[in-house]
Amino acid sequence: MIKKIYKANILYTKERGRFEILENGCVAVDADGRVTDVATDLTSIDCGDAEVVDFGDRLLVPAMNDLHVHAAQYRNQGIAMDLELLPWLQNYTFPEEMKYADTGYAGRMYRRFVRDLWRVGTMRACAFATIHTESTRVLMRLFREAGMGALVGKVGMNRNCSEKLAEPVERMVQGYESLIAEFNDPHGLVRPIVTPRFIPSCTPGMLRACGELAAKYHLPVQSHLSENRDEVALVRELEPESTCYGDAYDRYGLFGQTPTVMAHCVFTESEEMALMKKRGVMVAHCPTSNLNVTTGIAPVRQFLDEGLRVGFGSDISGGHNLSIFKMMVYAIQMSKLHYQRNHARSFLTLSEVFWMATKSAGSFFGRVGSFEPGYEFDALVIDDCGLNFDDYSLPERLERFIYLGDDRHIERRFCRGREIPEP
Amino acid sequence: MIKKIYKANILYTKERGRFEILENGCVAVDADGRVTDVATDLTSIDCGDAEVVDFGDRLLVPAMNDLHVHAAQYRNQGIAMDLELLPWLQNYTFPEEMKYADTGYAGRMYRRFVRDLWRVGTMRACAFATIHTESTRVLMRLFREAGMGALVGKVGMNRNCSEKLAEPVERMVQGYESLIAEFNDPHGLVRPIVTPRFIPSCTPGMLRACGELAAKYHLPVQSHLSENRDEVALVRELEPESTCYGDAYDRYGLFGQTPTVMAHCVFTESEEMALMKKRGVMVAHCPTSNLNVTTGIAPVRQFLDEGLRVGFGSDISGGHNLSIFKMMVYAIQMSKLHYQRNHARSFLTLSEVFWMATKSAGSFFGRVGSFEPGYEFDALVIDDCGLNFDDYSLPERLERFIYLGDDRHIERRFCRGREIPEP
Repeated sequence: MIKKIYKANILYTKERGRFEILENGCVAVDADGRVTDVATDLTSIDCGDAEVVDFGDRLLVPAMNDLHVHAAQYRNQGIAMDLELLPWLQNYTFPEEMKYADTGYAGRMYRRFVRDLWRVGTMRACAFATIHTESTRVLMRLFREAGMGALVGKVGMNRNCSEKLAEPVERMVQGYESLIAEFNDPHGLVRPIVTPRFIPSCTPGMLRACGELAAKYHLPVQSHLSENRDEVALVRELEPESTCYGDAYDRYGLFGQTPTVMAHCVFTESEEMALMKKRGVMVAHCPTSNLNVTTGIAPVRQFLDEGLRVGFGSDISGGHNLSIFKMMVYAIQMSKLHYQRNHARSFLTLSEVFWMATKSAGSFFGRVGSFEPGYEFDALVIDDCGLNFDDYSLPERLERFIYLGDDRHIERRFCRGREIPEP
Repeated sequence: MIKKIYKANILYTKERGRFEILENGCVAVDADGRVTDVATDLTSIDCGDAEVVDFGDRLLVPAMNDLHVHAAQYRNQGIAMDLELLPWLQNYTFPEEMKYADTGYAGRMYRRFVRDLWRVGTMRACAFATIHTESTRVLMRLFREAGMGALVGKVGMNRNCSEKLAEPVERMVQGYESLIAEFNDPHGLVRPIVTPRFIPSCTPGMLRACGELAAKYHLPVQSHLSENRDEVALVRELEPESTCYGDAYDRYGLFGQTPTVMAHCVFTESEEMALMKKRGVMVAHCPTSNLNVTTGIAPVRQFLDEGLRVGFGSDISGGHNLSIFKMMVYAIQMSKLHYQRNHARSFLTLSEVFWMATKSAGSFFGRVGSFEPGYEFDALVIDDCGLNFDDYSLPERLERFIYLGDDRHIERRFCRGREIPEP
């Protein structure tokens, strides 16, 4: 039964490369928070006694999904941005993550992190926490209290790192099981995601245990893949029997046996691409991080041409910007650099990156990221009146908001049909 | 005589590559708006009866300088960003510029443009207007009323464009002289700058007339240089006697005979670089525009190594972001892409890009862009308390503001010693 009908200027992407545009359209949402109808006017909808909420001239778009973000690097967002990867990890990232042994510190930081995600209009996230079970629980509870969707990963790592950030395999498994016990609802908005940091940080035993956890509890998996040439070479040494980095994860049941998202894929080549396609592995494209950490440009156009699933990650704090709208801007810009060198592959368009950020990325969380009937109503109301004061078309208004706008223009946020107040 | 003493956490760059950091420092400003002293405490300054203004824990930094911005493309900022250069010029840029035949339209748009520059903390700009003398006058008056510094260019163009945007040479000269008559003070904050659009848009007669205007009235010059491979090839055809694009300007007296700034320089090579160095021509590096318009990455590290003068341009609306702080971020990122391909040239650091945006770019406007004694006091007060709530160092606070901050954090703005209210 329809519970609410929202009226506004509606924009979303059913297909890659084309906006659906409903000027003064309406979207009907049922009591479960799912879209039942989307139409240009009310007369085509059986409204019953549904409440009609009119957002006037505002824009209504699907909410953002962040497929790769390190919640525990919140404090380092936007600092030490002119270091290279290794000194940055050693001097900033790892020391910061150690602080999360203290659940009090974790609570203060994670509270701000969740609020900032809310501000930028991200209603679903795949987040890395740290190795610390109780701090990870704090983050999961904060997401649950906020009413936002999140797959949260207690990080598995036990080699090539400071002792304080290494956890024995058994303790990692126990920690996961204790989180699973609290967050065991497969329909819950907040769930655990199995999170081996990446192959160089995990012994074969750790990777095996992660794969077993994913299989046993049917949990999704997230990690890093082919971010950096040296890393790719190191994985080849560490896992000599694997045909590529992705294959190494695959051998441990961590590459699409359950829903899997891999961040970066800057140096992913044809064989890895083929395996990702076969396994339905999602790419989390993190363009700002790839620039800041001096890794390069992921071949996103090629991923799309090959039929791979692709969404965006802010990758705080390799990335400095938490807004997925700004990831769209950077993704277009990076693809233009590719294009400038090789005109054989056209650059990404606005409707393509919008689709990546919404319907494509959203599919990792279920039926999320579109306003088609059956989709969960995750939405943002954009009040662009201070930004677009002139006679712009609806797609131009959206483009201006994406390029120039910020959290000031996001007036309301919905996740699974429920309006989400500031956490 | 010292008129005001400002106390705050002061950061500026005397030299490229190093921040001067004065925790709870003070800067003394005289009645002409020039810095007389900058020190870590008041005791070393002969204060007389100067008023002391204490900004507490806030940051005080030099204001921003924008060396290349098309004021008349204000309405197109952040739209049509997935077009290539030619359809973008034909369908968006030129039709928009034609509207400025109407001074009423120009007034409405330019008023917003000046206000937005103010918002992002840019106190000095080299701005392109259009061919229209009276609309250009409107923009110059708006800058003068605001109290902000600007070199404003009525655009010279008379070929390869719509008839409505071509102006005969004589009319161009008359127009300039009428603007010079009103804005003839060499110490004025607002002055004309000779502005041939670029060589493909100007006949030899137009270029010659521009060079003569610059020489006769000792006016600075701005234009575009080596932005795009096809453009460079076209200039070679149009000016076959020139040894490079820059040399073509040089032959018309438009390349450093008077102070000259050239935007882009993406494809500037050794000969052009040598000529720029010899003539003291300033590069306006426009990283977002170069990405959006699919041109490439300017060799900024090489410019600096060669001793060229370099500052930043937002290049609205090829660029989408008016904030010079964000140009710093993009410049570092672009230089990292260069670095990733060729480790022989290190990437730009934060203090280097800050110096480029302030002391280096500011030198185009006089003694602007530093807090050293004798410099005009162009400054921003940054209230970062909502952004940097934690125990960050002063350089980290500044870096966080540059990467994450926006106009909400800029609390006060000064140009030549005077506080500038919202225009």
